[in-house]
Amino acid sequence: MIINIVRQRRIISLICSLQYGYKQLGSVIRSSNRRSTTSNRFWSTPLLGLSLGFWNASSNNDYRYNDDYHFMAEPISEELNSDSTDWKGKKLPMKYQFELFCMQVQSEFCRQLQSMEEKYTDEIDDSRVKQFQVDRWKRAEGGGGITCILQDGTVFEKAGVNISVVHGMLPPPAIEQMRSRGKSLPSDRPLPFLAAGVSSVIHPRNPNIPTIHFNFRYFEVKTNDETGESQWWFGGGVDVTPYILNENMIKDFHRKLKSACDRHDTNYYPRFKKWCDDYFFVKHRQERRGIGGLFFDDLDQPNQSKLFRFVTDVAHTISPYYTSVVDREARSPYSYADREWQLIRRGRYVEFNLIYDRGTKFGLMTPGARYESILMSLPLTARWEYQHSVPEGSKESQLLEVLRNPKEWV
Amino acid sequence: MIINIVRQRRIISLICSLQYGYKQLGSVIRSSNRRSTTSNRFWSTPLLGLSLGFWNASSNNDYRYNDDYHFMAEPISEELNSDSTDWKGKKLPMKYQFELFCMQVQSEFCRQLQSMEEKYTDEIDDSRVKQFQVDRWKRAEGGGGITCILQDGTVFEKAGVNISVVHGMLPPPAIEQMRSRGKSLPSDRPLPFLAAGVSSVIHPRNPNIPTIHFNFRYFEVKTNDETGESQWWFGGGVDVTPYILNENMIKDFHRKLKSACDRHDTNYYPRFKKWCDDYFFVKHRQERRGIGGLFFDDLDQPNQSKLFRFVTDVAHTISPYYTSVVDREARSPYSYADREWQLIRRGRYVEFNLIYDRGTKFGLMTPGARYESILMSLPLTARWEYQHSVPEGSKESQLLEVLRNPKEWV
Repeated sequence: MIINIVRQRRIISLICSLQYGYKQLGSVIRSSNRRSTTSNRFWSTPLLGLSLGFWNASSNNDYRYNDDYHFMAEPISEELNSDSTDWKGKKLPMKYQFELFCMQVQSEFCRQLQSMEEKYTDEIDDSRVKQFQVDRWKRAEGGGGITCILQDGTVFEKAGVNISVVHGMLPPPAIEQMRSRGKSLPSDRPLPFLAAGVSSVIHPRNPNIPTIHFNFRYFEVKTNDETGESQWWFGGGVDVTPYILNENMIKDFHRKLKSACDRHDTNYYPRFKKWCDDYFFVKHRQERRGIGGLFFDDLDQPNQSKLFRFVTDVAHTISPYYTSVVDREARSPYSYADREWQLIRRGRYVEFNLIYDRGTKFGLMTPGARYESILMSLPLTARWEYQHSVPEGSKESQLLEVLRNPKEWV
Repeated sequence: MIINIVRQRRIISLICSLQYGYKQLGSVIRSSNRRSTTSNRFWSTPLLGLSLGFWNASSNNDYRYNDDYHFMAEPISEELNSDSTDWKGKKLPMKYQFELFCMQVQSEFCRQLQSMEEKYTDEIDDSRVKQFQVDRWKRAEGGGGITCILQDGTVFEKAGVNISVVHGMLPPPAIEQMRSRGKSLPSDRPLPFLAAGVSSVIHPRNPNIPTIHFNFRYFEVKTNDETGESQWWFGGGVDVTPYILNENMIKDFHRKLKSACDRHDTNYYPRFKKWCDDYFFVKHRQERRGIGGLFFDDLDQPNQSKLFRFVTDVAHTISPYYTSVVDREARSPYSYADREWQLIRRGRYVEFNLIYDRGTKFGLMTPGARYESILMSLPLTARWEYQHSVPEGSKESQLLEVLRNPKEWV
């Protein structure tokens, strides 16, 4: 059920303008991409532009907007695609705001990665530069997603940026899992739910560039069908997994995250930094998957719009940071040993994702899940050596040291 | 806590002779190996011979014995190593019989694999032929194991043969898991347990040779401390994961297994063949890990000695079968595409082992577990391609067909 979409409805643009009061720029048709090749390379298809100012909304009210945004495909929710839905004068529900935000993040990040791939691929024939493959899929049980993957490229061995918007009935084991996290949900029946999110894992080829992962999600569970009463929360985070320790690169990352957090609540950074260190823990090896970042879940205080602004602010730091790292390191030299070490670390990455990661488990257990999208987080190649050991004092052992004992980087 | 052992006690030989009434051949010192290199290559250390006839005991009472067996290291249980234990005239408890059986399987299989590795490695300098590394380890909470790994060889990319004999207190979640399988165990307190087993996973380099896995285990749980009452059961199985479908090879495998089963109970083969197909199921992909074999668990009928003979009989089919396959295919040609396909299938192998395999989960959750031994089942290299697809009618699709719809091979 993969559908490649070629049009973007003006209505979204209108909605966003109405909602946020930005100027509506209408249908600016642009093609940011040089190539127009096969039909499954949606990236290269010109789309109508949109103004989605809220994506750049920061808490200091210094709003900006992008006047030439295209999505990778049509939004998932019918309501956002339908001309007949009349949003005029109505407040756009958070689930739709969040879906549009996810699409925006996906689009911006894919575009940046694609431009890096083009910049660092020495090809005379442009058409041979690897492109993002875009798959828009539907879930029989409700909802769907858009999966964008660039694989086996020059800079990126595997780069995946997914959005999914799924709804349906929450199965009892999932409810039980949420109750065990402190949610007060009735446990006697399946509950209607909606989950929207964007998630990304980028495995670069050069071991000097860390793997990056981020995810932002919004959850709604209807607890009372009659009154329409529901619970909602935000979750997400961003973290990096370096192969070669570069302290400046890590400090810069944490500094940017802290500054995004501090604009909203000065407790956020220390709390979510620790949460991240605790979460990405490969228990059997007693080491972390990477050098951390932020992780948060179940956020429902102080209110929806403030939390949404916080989430968008964090998301907004990622692409510029990562693009600058890639730009600096894409051609930096590395040894055969560096590459081997990278593949071994990728094996640990796989271990975390398949054994411990809650998102992967939840994904694979959800009826009608699209496993290809869930497992896009796995690297193109990984390696497991029995009793691999690193020489004392080596750069590998320096990395292991911070994976075993997380540091304060800011 | 890795100890390399260089001696083998005469007492074991004596025990086995007493137990089974075979002639005791005493201390026949032999070195089956051409090389004697580093201290961690225990393989090449001459050991005292043993007669362990029960390993070859078949149900038709046609007993044979090996007069020159060496183990890879000293048995785990102190009782089997101690000269002061007086077994004379006593029946050897099953836990010790089973431990010796595990050691015997390990030794025989490692020796066969090593001989294949030597035969097919074109090295003028013998010392460069890859050897089994032997690690004897202790578990702080009780027991230990012997892990034998040959890695990055000519024939074998990774070959692991483990034994472990662990004992201690069964944690409540493990008891709960057993109760859910139908064991009537008290759930109000931790219970003393003992688990002995041998397990092996062999990942060859040539895609014409399937990966093989086997495991045999014996479990004891003490349900009443005062009366010493306990429950026991056997589990295990063997299955292969081909990369290129060779129907004759598979039929031969199943035929041999059926014949080993039929000697004990004609219901065993159909029952355990189906159990195997059901167990090694990668649910999210709706395909099996391989083309099956046998899988059984919780066997406690009709009695210990009959079941033990069944287990030894199944175990006994493996090494001759696999050695003949390796011998036939070790130099058979394959393409780059075959190798890529093999790596992709290995990715699925990793998925099964880390997401679904009960043994891996139980292992990693056991306090004091040695993760290196548990994760030896993972291949040296694996690959994940987004939406990998195979051409219709190709040999890859023929394989997928039998992984999706298990066949009757006999």
